[in-house]
Amino acid sequence: MRAKGTKGVARFSISLPGELAEQLDRMTREKGYDNRSLAIGDMIRAHLVEHRQRLGDEEIAGTITLLYDHHQRHVQTALTDIQHDHHTVIIATLHVHLDHHNCMEVLAVRGKAAPIKRIADELIAAKGVKHGKLTVTSTGKDLPG
Amino acid sequence: MRAKGTKGVARFSISLPGELAEQLDRMTREKGYDNRSLAIGDMIRAHLVEHRQRLGDEEIAGTITLLYDHHQRHVQTALTDIQHDHHTVIIATLHVHLDHHNCMEVLAVRGKAAPIKRIADELIAAKGVKHGKLTVTSTGKDLPG
Amino acid sequence: MRAKGTKGVARFSISLPGELAEQLDRMTREKGYDNRSLAIGDMIRAHLVEHRQRLGDEEIAGTITLLYDHHQRHVQTALTDIQHDHHTVIIATLHVHLDHHNCMEVLAVRGKAAPIKRIADELIAAKGVKHGKLTVTSTGKDLPG
Amino acid sequence: MRAKGTKGVARFSISLPGELAEQLDRMTREKGYDNRSLAIGDMIRAHLVEHRQRLGDEEIAGTITLLYDHHQRHVQTALTDIQHDHHTVIIATLHVHLDHHNCMEVLAVRGKAAPIKRIADELIAAKGVKHGKLTVTSTGKDLPG
Repeated sequence: MRAKGTKGVARFSISLPGELAEQLDRMTREKGYDNRSLAIGDMIRAHLVEHRQRLGDEEIAGTITLLYDHHQRHVQTALTDIQHDHHTVIIATLHVHLDHHNCMEVLAVRGKAAPIKRIADELIAAKGVKHGKLTVTSTGKDLPG
Repeated sequence: MRAKGTKGVARFSISLPGELAEQLDRMTREKGYDNRSLAIGDMIRAHLVEHRQRLGDEEIAGTITLLYDHHQRHVQTALTDIQHDHHTVIIATLHVHLDHHNCMEVLAVRGKAAPIKRIADELIAAKGVKHGKLTVTSTGKDLPG
Repeated sequence: MRAKGTKGVARFSISLPGELAEQLDRMTREKGYDNRSLAIGDMIRAHLVEHRQRLGDEEIAGTITLLYDHHQRHVQTALTDIQHDHHTVIIATLHVHLDHHNCMEVLAVRGKAAPIKRIADELIAAKGVKHGKLTVTSTGKDLPG
Repeated sequence: MRAKGTKGVARFSISLPGELAEQLDRMTREKGYDNRSLAIGDMIRAHLVEHRQRLGDEEIAGTITLLYDHHQRHVQTALTDIQHDHHTVIIATLHVHLDHHNCMEVLAVRGKAAPIKRIADELIAAKGVKHGKLTVTSTGKDLPG
């Protein structure tokens, strides 16, 4: 599974749901990339930048927004288990039933930045979650009006 | 170049600079994904959501997060007036009293991207709002799992 | 017997057993009303809301409050399934993680009284729900201030 | 302003919004009361029963549901001020814009029963609030599944 020739060019296979691969190809064309690999490379770089934003010890408030299909086996149980493990930083969760399948869940959070980022990563990586985002604001204490 | 078997699972090869592939693998582990394909799938979905919202006409779901001091004269009245003018796209608002002064207000929204962007701009620009952010996700309909 | 000037302010006399009047005055003070008329006005509105919901066809707003242990097998999946089946009357759901085990879930609902009562019954009867309550208010349209 | 002859029958005047007086008269007829005073007497007794339910030192969770017209001068400012004074027991507030005028606000609360009842009384008595209700559930700790 290890990518070969890692210092020069690495070539490896990936598997995606067919429909997602189709939409990737359309976006690759629309954005003007010559090929899929270049498009994916840029996405990875963009995510690395975000991932490395070292959030530390500062107190933040914010939200974690999740989109998922609640019919996916176990997704909701998994999300609730993760949330209860961290119930001291999660103030409350707003759940919106978008349609028969799709849910948007918004967690209002408050606490140290680093652990909140880890919780967000864990929730977004959970199987069945289609899309997720951590939105950080301040607790307002050190932010003059 | 076309991914095979597009409606089931598509399997294809990509080429990345060796060091980028290494950092992808590290991020995949740190974020808790089981494998590279799952991590890349989530990145593609995140970029699809962003790519589509630029078009303006897309139906989106999302949140508007606002931080303000409710003691500021008129800020809350102003925010509620704006929200009621647009009550068809605002599903519900979650209000968290962070401390004696600071409020975090999270609006769950759904509708066309362009008018939602205008509402967010109007709310964030309102006098007394210290910080605000529009977080866009999809309604899930056109985002394959 | 008809109250005068009904579209502006109606002023009329009522007779009460002396002791009841005394206790009304005490309750008026304890609840923080400025005067007896304001306290009686609120009581009338509360009774109007209850009186109308018996009719079933009335458009109401309200909440369904549920208490459950999310570790109970399937309780959350069951609740979400019921909620999605009725996503047109459920505006949004607020989920509070009370502790490692217990959740309070508050559904904001809006629609005809009769179907909302059935949804509440179904949710409260679901296995694993420890306690539940339907709280009815008005949509405000036919409730004078 | 003191009701006369308090031990026998007390007769006094009250003022109500005209439309509310009309709806009171209709409900009085529909419920089969001979007159308005008898209907109001029964409402007062029903509220006294609730008011006297001595909530004490026990830890509860619950909701306070409020219906109001946000165009009413100062109502929202008043409500937010009261809520911030008690921000330690109010977990989060869900605000639903029912129409251009009417708001439903649901506060998720947790704490000692007695102070929560006082906060609810204060919010419900606030000028501009048309209807309000305290719904009490347990924190789940002492309630077997």
